[in-house]
Amino acid sequence: MLPSVSLLDSFQASQFSVILAIYLVAITAEAMSGALVAGQRDMDIFGVAVIAFVTALGGGTIRDMVLGHYPIGWTQHPEYVYLVISAGLLTTLVARYMHHLKRVFLLLDAMGLIAFSLIGCSVALELNYPPVVVVLSGMLTGISGGILRDVLCNQVPVVFRRELYASVSLTVCLLFLGLSALDVDYNVSTAVCFATGLALRMAAIRFQWRLPVFSYQQRWED
Amino acid sequence: MLPSVSLLDSFQASQFSVILAIYLVAITAEAMSGALVAGQRDMDIFGVAVIAFVTALGGGTIRDMVLGHYPIGWTQHPEYVYLVISAGLLTTLVARYMHHLKRVFLLLDAMGLIAFSLIGCSVALELNYPPVVVVLSGMLTGISGGILRDVLCNQVPVVFRRELYASVSLTVCLLFLGLSALDVDYNVSTAVCFATGLALRMAAIRFQWRLPVFSYQQRWED
Amino acid sequence: MLPSVSLLDSFQASQFSVILAIYLVAITAEAMSGALVAGQRDMDIFGVAVIAFVTALGGGTIRDMVLGHYPIGWTQHPEYVYLVISAGLLTTLVARYMHHLKRVFLLLDAMGLIAFSLIGCSVALELNYPPVVVVLSGMLTGISGGILRDVLCNQVPVVFRRELYASVSLTVCLLFLGLSALDVDYNVSTAVCFATGLALRMAAIRFQWRLPVFSYQQRWED
Repeated sequence: MLPSVSLLDSFQASQFSVILAIYLVAITAEAMSGALVAGQRDMDIFGVAVIAFVTALGGGTIRDMVLGHYPIGWTQHPEYVYLVISAGLLTTLVARYMHHLKRVFLLLDAMGLIAFSLIGCSVALELNYPPVVVVLSGMLTGISGGILRDVLCNQVPVVFRRELYASVSLTVCLLFLGLSALDVDYNVSTAVCFATGLALRMAAIRFQWRLPVFSYQQRWED
Repeated sequence: MLPSVSLLDSFQASQFSVILAIYLVAITAEAMSGALVAGQRDMDIFGVAVIAFVTALGGGTIRDMVLGHYPIGWTQHPEYVYLVISAGLLTTLVARYMHHLKRVFLLLDAMGLIAFSLIGCSVALELNYPPVVVVLSGMLTGISGGILRDVLCNQVPVVFRRELYASVSLTVCLLFLGLSALDVDYNVSTAVCFATGLALRMAAIRFQWRLPVFSYQQRWED
Repeated sequence: MLPSVSLLDSFQASQFSVILAIYLVAITAEAMSGALVAGQRDMDIFGVAVIAFVTALGGGTIRDMVLGHYPIGWTQHPEYVYLVISAGLLTTLVARYMHHLKRVFLLLDAMGLIAFSLIGCSVALELNYPPVVVVLSGMLTGISGGILRDVLCNQVPVVFRRELYASVSLTVCLLFLGLSALDVDYNVSTAVCFATGLALRMAAIRFQWRLPVFSYQQRWED
């Protein structure tokens, strides 16, 4: 469940294409998971395509809108749009077999979360935003696609309640920012972030680590 | 249920004012339908005004925010704001008689969907976005007002489940883009889009054409 | 329940720092109320932090995105981010004692609503938007943080249904715009807006003033 040595090696060989490859795998995996949630709401295939799109590309869209970073990424990469919509629609055909692949999906999803977080940090860094905004940009990119998916599917976002997920994004972003401040080589820092993030996420799933829950049953707003 | 010959004629005479007139009728109709959904949630008249506004002008707002197209349309046209809020509030007075007009409303709503789609395509074309973004911009303008309305009213967006609606927008956008690429006269192409879109939407309502539904009952995310 | 003479005095002495102080108190109070709503949904502390952030800073974020006003306020003030997240997390520790402070909270919330509204109007005025957009910008700043909170907590926004709240924002915005047009001194006009807004809001809570409700039980959309 940890990144293999060959993955770490290839980062050093060619960081750019590796991050891109992980990104493409990640948006595909996110699109497929979005399609499954849409299917739980009995949506038609148009709804499936929208939810797949929003789950995969919504996080980056919200980040770019908040940071004023135009044009938004996918508008310059039509191939991403085709990829995520195809992945969403294809999912409707293969859904019945997908539970066999749940472990693979959790791994791809974790890699996506980390890739999204690092990309979000990089975008905010390039735009010279202050450190706290860099971290928030990374987290926004990592988790807000799933939040949008849940809002459109009329459920409380799972990210607010499940085992460590946003915390993985936060850890990765802080680590990345810290290593950047220390002038660590970009490839090394990226590899360290992936290794740490994947280890943390996989441990969280395995041991069901959760953040403390806040329950408040009095009515306050009305 | 199809656009009359005189409508097609007037397009050729004066495309601009006809599209504008249809747009004004459309945002009025959307505002009124928004108000009815707000009434199903027992909102007060402020809530009704907000939902009317969002249903009518929210699609264009989201499109402009995604495309980075500032200032957003209605901020330069205060009269649109007054129109949609008035229409929403007026609806609370005449709601009990509106079911007699349901057929008229479905027609106006279909015309609005097509007008919104064409306007959305045009905005993205002017900003030189690639074709897939032009189509998405048209669809975003056509359907996201209704999606916002449903999210604010705490229900799964109907557009993800009802008889052909977003598909009409998609068809119209693709047709418009295709005819533009073929250098067809703008007025002719607009008229063809309206005729095709209305025919498709009305047939979909009449014969209850729906897209295939994707049902997936296993829990995946949690 | 009305602003004391000393508050009005201090406005005249130093309008800027007073508005800023009220703003900081207001975002703290909004963050705390957001945290309580998150607790009603049994969210983990990450969810609490997000809802606190969104309730306190979401209104200004949406206003800036709609007006194309970049960079968004909190991205240039990391201290606001720390403040609202700390306030949200602290709330989980002191929640059981907070119902004793409900009256204080309602007062702080009302002051926040008015401060947000005035700030929203000022931002739109500086950007030379027309009067109706100035008023909408004030209202958007005042109420959309709470709307976002409710959407993320999967409930119909309370602002669409409770005793006069958005109407207080509307009154304050119109008053502010009217006094600006009459060239009334900024400090005087701010003080008048606070006095009027607080009086109206407190009376609305005390006497349970509500806007008329629109109930419509026929199904229309489907």
